[in-house]
Amino acid sequence: MANTFGEKWSFTSFGESHGAAVGGVLDGVPAGLHIDLAMIRTELDRRAGREPAEKRQGSQQGIGVSPRAIREEDEVEWLSGTLDGVTLGTPIAFLIRNKDARPEDYEWLKHSYRTGHADKVYEQKYGIRDWRGGGRASARETAARVVAGCIAKQELAAKGISIRASLIQVGAETDPAKFAETIAAYQREGDSIGGIVECRINGLPVGTGEPIFNKLQAELAFAIMSINACKGFEYGTGFEGVTRPGSEINHISGGIVGGIADGTEVVFRCVFKPTPTTPNALAKVQKDDVQYTKVGRHDACVAVRAVPVVEAMTALALVQFLY
Amino acid sequence: MANTFGEKWSFTSFGESHGAAVGGVLDGVPAGLHIDLAMIRTELDRRAGREPAEKRQGSQQGIGVSPRAIREEDEVEWLSGTLDGVTLGTPIAFLIRNKDARPEDYEWLKHSYRTGHADKVYEQKYGIRDWRGGGRASARETAARVVAGCIAKQELAAKGISIRASLIQVGAETDPAKFAETIAAYQREGDSIGGIVECRINGLPVGTGEPIFNKLQAELAFAIMSINACKGFEYGTGFEGVTRPGSEINHISGGIVGGIADGTEVVFRCVFKPTPTTPNALAKVQKDDVQYTKVGRHDACVAVRAVPVVEAMTALALVQFLY
Amino acid sequence: MANTFGEKWSFTSFGESHGAAVGGVLDGVPAGLHIDLAMIRTELDRRAGREPAEKRQGSQQGIGVSPRAIREEDEVEWLSGTLDGVTLGTPIAFLIRNKDARPEDYEWLKHSYRTGHADKVYEQKYGIRDWRGGGRASARETAARVVAGCIAKQELAAKGISIRASLIQVGAETDPAKFAETIAAYQREGDSIGGIVECRINGLPVGTGEPIFNKLQAELAFAIMSINACKGFEYGTGFEGVTRPGSEINHISGGIVGGIADGTEVVFRCVFKPTPTTPNALAKVQKDDVQYTKVGRHDACVAVRAVPVVEAMTALALVQFLY
Amino acid sequence: MANTFGEKWSFTSFGESHGAAVGGVLDGVPAGLHIDLAMIRTELDRRAGREPAEKRQGSQQGIGVSPRAIREEDEVEWLSGTLDGVTLGTPIAFLIRNKDARPEDYEWLKHSYRTGHADKVYEQKYGIRDWRGGGRASARETAARVVAGCIAKQELAAKGISIRASLIQVGAETDPAKFAETIAAYQREGDSIGGIVECRINGLPVGTGEPIFNKLQAELAFAIMSINACKGFEYGTGFEGVTRPGSEINHISGGIVGGIADGTEVVFRCVFKPTPTTPNALAKVQKDDVQYTKVGRHDACVAVRAVPVVEAMTALALVQFLY
Repeated sequence: MANTFGEKWSFTSFGESHGAAVGGVLDGVPAGLHIDLAMIRTELDRRAGREPAEKRQGSQQGIGVSPRAIREEDEVEWLSGTLDGVTLGTPIAFLIRNKDARPEDYEWLKHSYRTGHADKVYEQKYGIRDWRGGGRASARETAARVVAGCIAKQELAAKGISIRASLIQVGAETDPAKFAETIAAYQREGDSIGGIVECRINGLPVGTGEPIFNKLQAELAFAIMSINACKGFEYGTGFEGVTRPGSEINHISGGIVGGIADGTEVVFRCVFKPTPTTPNALAKVQKDDVQYTKVGRHDACVAVRAVPVVEAMTALALVQFLY
Repeated sequence: MANTFGEKWSFTSFGESHGAAVGGVLDGVPAGLHIDLAMIRTELDRRAGREPAEKRQGSQQGIGVSPRAIREEDEVEWLSGTLDGVTLGTPIAFLIRNKDARPEDYEWLKHSYRTGHADKVYEQKYGIRDWRGGGRASARETAARVVAGCIAKQELAAKGISIRASLIQVGAETDPAKFAETIAAYQREGDSIGGIVECRINGLPVGTGEPIFNKLQAELAFAIMSINACKGFEYGTGFEGVTRPGSEINHISGGIVGGIADGTEVVFRCVFKPTPTTPNALAKVQKDDVQYTKVGRHDACVAVRAVPVVEAMTALALVQFLY
Repeated sequence: MANTFGEKWSFTSFGESHGAAVGGVLDGVPAGLHIDLAMIRTELDRRAGREPAEKRQGSQQGIGVSPRAIREEDEVEWLSGTLDGVTLGTPIAFLIRNKDARPEDYEWLKHSYRTGHADKVYEQKYGIRDWRGGGRASARETAARVVAGCIAKQELAAKGISIRASLIQVGAETDPAKFAETIAAYQREGDSIGGIVECRINGLPVGTGEPIFNKLQAELAFAIMSINACKGFEYGTGFEGVTRPGSEINHISGGIVGGIADGTEVVFRCVFKPTPTTPNALAKVQKDDVQYTKVGRHDACVAVRAVPVVEAMTALALVQFLY
Repeated sequence: MANTFGEKWSFTSFGESHGAAVGGVLDGVPAGLHIDLAMIRTELDRRAGREPAEKRQGSQQGIGVSPRAIREEDEVEWLSGTLDGVTLGTPIAFLIRNKDARPEDYEWLKHSYRTGHADKVYEQKYGIRDWRGGGRASARETAARVVAGCIAKQELAAKGISIRASLIQVGAETDPAKFAETIAAYQREGDSIGGIVECRINGLPVGTGEPIFNKLQAELAFAIMSINACKGFEYGTGFEGVTRPGSEINHISGGIVGGIADGTEVVFRCVFKPTPTTPNALAKVQKDDVQYTKVGRHDACVAVRAVPVVEAMTALALVQFLY
């Protein structure tokens, strides 16, 4: 089941980027949970690089974010699983229509594969491909993850568990005050850059996780590495810990011992590669005699918008261990 | 199912470190595969830090490896699933007796938790704990993984897929010629040190992996992060790629695009923390009025013995995608 | 995952009877399958007890079938997974709006439990209940099963496997020519009656099924017993075979030996109980001082409409074994 | 995972009838359960058609039971998961050696398929077959089910849930006092006969079961139909209910409404076909020019020994819903 995540809270995602809709079904949510719709809207805005609706004044901004994301408000249509805003214990199905879908922008992709994108491997794997903006490989799919993740976060919050992710590095820059500037510089040069997201989980009960194959860190890694463009996951002392002896670092658990939460803050980091689709990259493709006039809409630093997706996937991973 | 890995080749691991045996059941192996028992013996020796049986002459060596590992030859007892050395398509059950089990060495652990070990969290989670050498949390459990992984590797090899892991860094040292020396230095100081293992997969068919949640990198990360002491996983440009712009690195796929193998070599790395149980660490525990005279048997650099386990888990992860 | 059926073709069903929609997500369908939409419409008509659209002339009929079923045409809205009518290998999501939903018809049910219905147990289990016409327990949920089952049947047909179910008994009556009459008689008396459906599968490759827990008969029984009102499943000689000695019946396999298809026709039967909601039953409920003016819309013999659902669930069960 | 049953309590069965051993791994059992070994011995005796050890005096009996079953005491060897008789929360592995295995008795089967047995379909499916007494298809595999089922029954009993199966029909005979006589009569004629087992579950909490695909009756049917020789499953009014109108039987729930336990006794029945291997059947095989001098050891009415297996599988099915 390649489009389903989790067994206790089972989330099935569907939808192509420029098809009718993206959406999902979230099964396993207990009855009686009041869903906070405003929080879901806020998180979808965050994922889209939009200012939250309540803060916007005329001009929209969102540094290094594709125009489509800014323009298109994601409206969630709820199909099942709730009655008067309260969950019924039955599957919660929802969809977000692709209002701003413009397949014609991608006509040129019918006969062309973009470097660093999944165009070619999809066609090799399936023999057919939805060429419209990456189809299912598009980051638009993560909107559905954010909706499901919000519901998971609400349940976790009710149990005293909080998840907070943030961007801690862009290129070589580690001062958050300078991230926007750094991204803008790469964007001006028709280039793109990667970033590191750190996530902190608090309130997790001691014992969360299963000690052999389903270690907490393994489940988190699985969830996070399933996000587009993510190239690495580490927790606690991570890769840098390799140079420091046991006597120095063995008290740093990163919140997990033997695959099980030890009651302290869980800290992990993940890295996102630069966007492959940049004006420069497209110029190169064009040299191979491919003619096109319009260019897909993309971000200069996907790590920015990955932050709420990291939180969503973390929530979906953790909620499996709640019961 | 916290002790089962995989759905198509489903591997269930069992056994406590100082109980009767460790072992496993491997289900889903097709009928008609000839099992190469010699290769399994070699890999178990490699995991145990023993010279392969055929190369040994009198003195055993294995730098930074615990005495138990060296002494105890792992004999696999096959219980089912084969007839005349050929698989029947039925579950393959096997066990390795804990011949050198000495629970009395661990009596002192009954009322004591070791720093950096899972002793305390196990007791918190289960209310009961097998104090005998870490019980199920012991790295001895990985012997069963190696056996199952060998069978998976044999099937992969028959399809032209090879897996090769190696230690590429110990502490700050990246020259393999100096690894033994580096480890020995930490060992002399009663300390321990981490290491980085790199793994290269060749021959993987284009399209291997599932593009949304079960991305090839997510499945590999899940498998590898389930190994004791592993603190991070990355592939392709990994964490270091964060400082390099898209124009420079977006042609480096690490063998995976959109969650799917692209037909080039897959390269990933993982980091192992230093062993928590060192003479120094034990001296500290002793200060808290715990009396003991014997010390458990442990390695100075677990990354050494993790190499065949990384290969085994990689094989078990990949074999799920074969059919 | 209580709302998901199958692992290779994974079908997730959602929707309350009188909520916005019922629908589903079917994941695992290979790319390149042309979906026959006309066949799906025909099967939905069959499930609803409607004459197929192309045969209707003015008056609708459907003996013993609820007025809602007849009135409401089920229009499938396709959300994802296809491009120009061909499957992409990505999840196929669809919904059927509840156009004729009339929650007000069921207002009286807010504070009342119907005999033989799941009203009370749902409330006991979940603490909350969608009182609108049975919510998720309504047979309307089977419309989604029929859509998914049709796609499975199309794939099976492409591989030469056919499924044909039919009603073979209504009450004590075994002559199909008299079924309509028999049902009408019970309906006139304000009563209801059960029926037996027989299903024949042809073209199943020898070896289909897994010999221990996932025997072909176990998977079929699981699929069929999940249909509302089904009280029993048998194959081959079934329950009646108990009186006949081995020498007489052991050559009758019912198409399955040792849990595996033997290449002959698979034959199974299942029994459906009478509808619990009948005018008589409601009259009894009313005596307990519950006031209502409208009555839910129900069938006199649910076995009639169960026939295409039996085929759908059979197809969904078999398709798991295809690859 | 064709040899694993259940997800919360996950039971993996292994072993060929005349290989080294049969056994299993039971994962998911909570820590702290005291295992009643005497009860397991009693149930294994019951499955084997042996008088319980404590009641035996010199001569063994067991009407219609194969000599091997009577002779061979099943000794369970516990490999993991317990410490001082108490479960650790880790996988419980066990094996039963095939002490009386006599592969040479089955040499003639190497080139012959028995009617009504899985010999031929196994070879067609796998291309290879363990010809030694049916290999994995032998009912000996159910010994492992009984061990696991006993542990499940102990956990259920601790929660006030009881399971009691009994033989209610043999051939046309429904008076238990005459079952032994009936079976003996068929045995004398070199023939065999089927039987019906009824099972009653008490104490099941209201709400047990999942209302859509994983209905309680569907899970029970799946578990029971996975037992060798079982040809049908029904609950409540079952197949006979087809002739009785709703007004008469709709208050009979069989303990399950809408797929969920309603708090009353759950009653189901299942039917077992006659043994295919009888002296008469073998005489027929011999006519096809197959030479053999020894005959496999089999029962005249397998339904007798199926009773504890029905209880075991019921327990394994129910225990999935406990948490």
